[in-house]
Amino acid sequence: MVIVIKPGTQQQHMDDIVRLLESKGLKVHLSVGESRTIIGVIGDKSVLSGVNIGLLPGVEKIVPITENYKLASKAFRPEGSVVKVGGRSVGGREFAMIAGPCAVESREQIFEAARIARAGGAQFLRGGAYKPRTSPYAFQGLEKEGLKLLREAASEYGLLTVSELVSESLIDEAAAYLDVIQIGARNAQNFRLLKETGRSGIPVLLKRGIAETIDEWLASAEYIMSEGNYNIILCERGIRTFETATRNTLDISAIAVVKEKSHLPLIIDPSHAAGKAAYIPSLSRAAVAAGADGLMIEVHPNPKAALSDASQQLGEEEFLSLCRDIAKFAAASGREYDLFEGNGGGKC
Amino acid sequence: MVIVIKPGTQQQHMDDIVRLLESKGLKVHLSVGESRTIIGVIGDKSVLSGVNIGLLPGVEKIVPITENYKLASKAFRPEGSVVKVGGRSVGGREFAMIAGPCAVESREQIFEAARIARAGGAQFLRGGAYKPRTSPYAFQGLEKEGLKLLREAASEYGLLTVSELVSESLIDEAAAYLDVIQIGARNAQNFRLLKETGRSGIPVLLKRGIAETIDEWLASAEYIMSEGNYNIILCERGIRTFETATRNTLDISAIAVVKEKSHLPLIIDPSHAAGKAAYIPSLSRAAVAAGADGLMIEVHPNPKAALSDASQQLGEEEFLSLCRDIAKFAAASGREYDLFEGNGGGKC
Amino acid sequence: MVIVIKPGTQQQHMDDIVRLLESKGLKVHLSVGESRTIIGVIGDKSVLSGVNIGLLPGVEKIVPITENYKLASKAFRPEGSVVKVGGRSVGGREFAMIAGPCAVESREQIFEAARIARAGGAQFLRGGAYKPRTSPYAFQGLEKEGLKLLREAASEYGLLTVSELVSESLIDEAAAYLDVIQIGARNAQNFRLLKETGRSGIPVLLKRGIAETIDEWLASAEYIMSEGNYNIILCERGIRTFETATRNTLDISAIAVVKEKSHLPLIIDPSHAAGKAAYIPSLSRAAVAAGADGLMIEVHPNPKAALSDASQQLGEEEFLSLCRDIAKFAAASGREYDLFEGNGGGKC
Amino acid sequence: MVIVIKPGTQQQHMDDIVRLLESKGLKVHLSVGESRTIIGVIGDKSVLSGVNIGLLPGVEKIVPITENYKLASKAFRPEGSVVKVGGRSVGGREFAMIAGPCAVESREQIFEAARIARAGGAQFLRGGAYKPRTSPYAFQGLEKEGLKLLREAASEYGLLTVSELVSESLIDEAAAYLDVIQIGARNAQNFRLLKETGRSGIPVLLKRGIAETIDEWLASAEYIMSEGNYNIILCERGIRTFETATRNTLDISAIAVVKEKSHLPLIIDPSHAAGKAAYIPSLSRAAVAAGADGLMIEVHPNPKAALSDASQQLGEEEFLSLCRDIAKFAAASGREYDLFEGNGGGKC
Repeated sequence: MVIVIKPGTQQQHMDDIVRLLESKGLKVHLSVGESRTIIGVIGDKSVLSGVNIGLLPGVEKIVPITENYKLASKAFRPEGSVVKVGGRSVGGREFAMIAGPCAVESREQIFEAARIARAGGAQFLRGGAYKPRTSPYAFQGLEKEGLKLLREAASEYGLLTVSELVSESLIDEAAAYLDVIQIGARNAQNFRLLKETGRSGIPVLLKRGIAETIDEWLASAEYIMSEGNYNIILCERGIRTFETATRNTLDISAIAVVKEKSHLPLIIDPSHAAGKAAYIPSLSRAAVAAGADGLMIEVHPNPKAALSDASQQLGEEEFLSLCRDIAKFAAASGREYDLFEGNGGGKC
Repeated sequence: MVIVIKPGTQQQHMDDIVRLLESKGLKVHLSVGESRTIIGVIGDKSVLSGVNIGLLPGVEKIVPITENYKLASKAFRPEGSVVKVGGRSVGGREFAMIAGPCAVESREQIFEAARIARAGGAQFLRGGAYKPRTSPYAFQGLEKEGLKLLREAASEYGLLTVSELVSESLIDEAAAYLDVIQIGARNAQNFRLLKETGRSGIPVLLKRGIAETIDEWLASAEYIMSEGNYNIILCERGIRTFETATRNTLDISAIAVVKEKSHLPLIIDPSHAAGKAAYIPSLSRAAVAAGADGLMIEVHPNPKAALSDASQQLGEEEFLSLCRDIAKFAAASGREYDLFEGNGGGKC
Repeated sequence: MVIVIKPGTQQQHMDDIVRLLESKGLKVHLSVGESRTIIGVIGDKSVLSGVNIGLLPGVEKIVPITENYKLASKAFRPEGSVVKVGGRSVGGREFAMIAGPCAVESREQIFEAARIARAGGAQFLRGGAYKPRTSPYAFQGLEKEGLKLLREAASEYGLLTVSELVSESLIDEAAAYLDVIQIGARNAQNFRLLKETGRSGIPVLLKRGIAETIDEWLASAEYIMSEGNYNIILCERGIRTFETATRNTLDISAIAVVKEKSHLPLIIDPSHAAGKAAYIPSLSRAAVAAGADGLMIEVHPNPKAALSDASQQLGEEEFLSLCRDIAKFAAASGREYDLFEGNGGGKC
Repeated sequence: MVIVIKPGTQQQHMDDIVRLLESKGLKVHLSVGESRTIIGVIGDKSVLSGVNIGLLPGVEKIVPITENYKLASKAFRPEGSVVKVGGRSVGGREFAMIAGPCAVESREQIFEAARIARAGGAQFLRGGAYKPRTSPYAFQGLEKEGLKLLREAASEYGLLTVSELVSESLIDEAAAYLDVIQIGARNAQNFRLLKETGRSGIPVLLKRGIAETIDEWLASAEYIMSEGNYNIILCERGIRTFETATRNTLDISAIAVVKEKSHLPLIIDPSHAAGKAAYIPSLSRAAVAAGADGLMIEVHPNPKAALSDASQQLGEEEFLSLCRDIAKFAAASGREYDLFEGNGGGKC
């Protein structure tokens, strides 16, 4: 922590600050410059809880040097984490693909989506059961029934399940059906949900909030990790900016930044970022090339009939064509990704 | 709803779109321009749930004309709403003041804060009991014990209580202690919490999310209202922008915009927007002059010792001085606001 | 300047950094913490031009402590600046009003606008002659002819002139007609124009760029001041954010922040921020109450016929009504502002 | 253009609007819905210049349907444009690389940079001669002398030159030295400069402003094209958002969006977006994979000694390694890109 002192501060106020810090067991380094004096503070700053340095006379501002997270930081596991789910892994050589519809709508729809996902090489099937919708009058999801259908469809095609939970009260009823719990952008700072998901021990796909900085996002991950659950997959899905040509602005730089700051694997969700199916292939290729560990793509057997967010869902042909592209760019990136080539559409 | 057709679309595709819309009972108006054809669609668009117009061949984009909310819209109550809480009201001639510490820390602290709030003319005492903190290692609040202390302190000084709930699971345990439930910026789109708060019937202070548009914020209010609870006070507390001189950017225009779009009363929280005590008086005066129905100010008997967000809390003197200013500008705005002038510090 | 060292940096790299800094005559303070080592650097950092500390092995990041500007900083004139133009002043007790149409369109229009401006108490008449328009096919202004008309109309009603220049090549031809040169938001970092305006010695109204931080804005002012021209009036006119209900988001906090960081007077332009005439009165009252030194309001004798930005221009009645409001809030703020009460509409 | 009518508008006001539109020769389609009436307007809207529909009684808002640009739109040249410069082309099969230092600092430095650029396969040498710097006290460039050195170095290695001009007054003195004029982000809406650059006929590299929407950027291109110069290369270089981990946020989606809206070629500048050398390889690979037509990379023979923006410049080894990556991803994208393999370092 660095404390910047206002120009013209009386010596006595400076002494008070120093005395206070030292009384708490902290070490203090004074640097008296021409235009500013700064105080470097060394030691465990948690002893300052209960004191507000920022309001002491003479303090201009405080510059934090260390981040708000420890378990999520690169230093905690410099070699990087590989999250194991079922027999698959995210963050290693294998490139992860999570595919499926925005919302589970019917048995037929989710089974068809599972078949397509499998054919494209996906390891994970996604499908929303509890939908956070901006309007209270829009379709809100099939809830528990949707989760059951998701699990059945995934089992049929040898896939793992991912679905969003919007409240900690749903974890118990959902646990049996989910291999990965998704925490959505709107709940990225719902700290109750983060903590309880941490306690559940179930792997978590943690989306970035649309206005969360990368540091805040990693602090959200820290909430889950601080409860002992280290199986976290980060998911960038676009941030809110002034540009309206896309629904949100995919922060492609987040890949390089997260790889530098954290050991957690990171995947990209181009569907929510773009909000338009036509832009998804370009963004998906960019994600692979930039070094993402996987993709999450909205796929629907019949996008034109989708009940929610239909404009951003790919149909079967577009998805398979995208997956062939991904395989090519994954190879150029030194990653493994294969479409399913077997008989019978991949049914187990 | 207006559908914009891509240049060069085949007549057959256009016919398909029109036939589909008409088959759903909608009326259609075609306007063939030089560079674009547009289709105006009239009728209840909910019949289109299950169809994704945006993906039909020939559709360039869809321009919604009506908003995502009805109950929250100005048209629902053109005369404006006055929310009654206890014997007080928000949205009428009386200017509302909600004051108190960021977090309830101790009996002594909250009673002192209540005394100061009362002296300044506040009708409401605020104090956080369940704190949403970015870091899992920061002080998280006294929880239920905090609510009890808040209620006791408020009763002692004839004030009403406001505190944030961060999960729908807390409503039952909190109901007895709260006159107004606050929904914080991070939960502005926690739709479960919104719905359950709606069902509780308790008046709600609904903060705007840091990246919520005004239309989305009113759609969040609609979630509460759609459950039959119309006692909503909106609270603007700053939005996230590129500027870092303040913690967030207070969107002062939101006052004029909300007054045009909605009948709900609106107050301003300059403390969270500014993140710095020195800026609060300027922002508070601006809020009164712009036509806000009230203010929410962080006040602490001893800001330097505050356990959370201390840099933005006012001490007793600053708060009383601010309240005198408010009274002056409230008068210029045709509103009523008075500091407490009685004996004994306002104890009941 | 504070240099933050990466965890795990070799001692030798740290020594290299320190040796380099000391070889340049800088003093160095090392603070070795548990998770980070930081180096405080004292002295004139301009000796480092030609060296890129940020790329030295072991450097994590550099935290600047002092700002990019000196002449524009509060420390340069703690008492605040009053800019004198003609017989008037901006930044003192008198509240400044700059009124007039977006663009000078005709003799009749600008004379009518001048009459209205005068009646409302304005000291300055504005009117665009060189219009920066997003589309090359839109009305681009009357250029020099517009400036002449502006000057004539202003003289007739005893007003001073303000108009935007969009290139340094226009200063010579414009100098005779302008009391204040306006630099628009799109040219806020057109450093050539800033420098040449600085050399001209003519008072400058410097608008904030729509994506300029307050620190960058003050650095833009520094460009003008570094050429010896200290007569600068800052003008906040809204920043670009995700919110689309208003054209831009008026950063009302900029008033408090600028008053803390700089000595320069600051006015508010609610017309461009709001982009909608209906919101201007609310924003104008807020600006006065927050402590602005003046307002810049778009006024047009016949807004419905305006050639540019008509939706944000006030007509005569709305403007006079607004000015009566301003007078009331100016009084509550301890400022002076009076509408013109004399005979004959204020003609000189 | 669609005009949305306020609920409850009197029939007479509606008739007035329709009569006005028709009197101007426009055709009008009325769609009377339950909650809103809308008016579709067909014909050349330029006849409305001089009338402000937005202020007519009964008008709620106006929704434009066609864009602000014609020559820059996809419809103008659906097959896409290939910009020819010297013997090279941008926008075709060949992947373009523009490399060189932020600023020309000396003969030795720019010749060394040219050698490295050539070795990496670049076709263009960049180097700033007129530097727009936030602080007036920072290095401002070698000006004309810098351009001469740039041209000499480029000639020596068979490269074409690109450099930024910051004022239309520089075009004449610079024309002899430049194959491509760069217009920087800060001048993206300096319409004088855009127009004069258009008149010069010299190919233009047009950077996106940090707060420009894609539609505004294309309207800036229209300014140049409206003067008859169609040789425009767009350059995305990051937009300003709330995230501070990178200098700006690279809008990778802009590639797909621009390819849909315009025929102009588009390159990516990851150096300015990232502001940190370590992030450039990840962003560059993403750009190629997403479909960009080229890259602009800051390269310096000795980045640690660079006089400006050193933290974002690559050294020789990093650049060559990046170029090998680019070649691989260009191949996967069906583009051509080769490093220079000949003898003698590529000297002509």
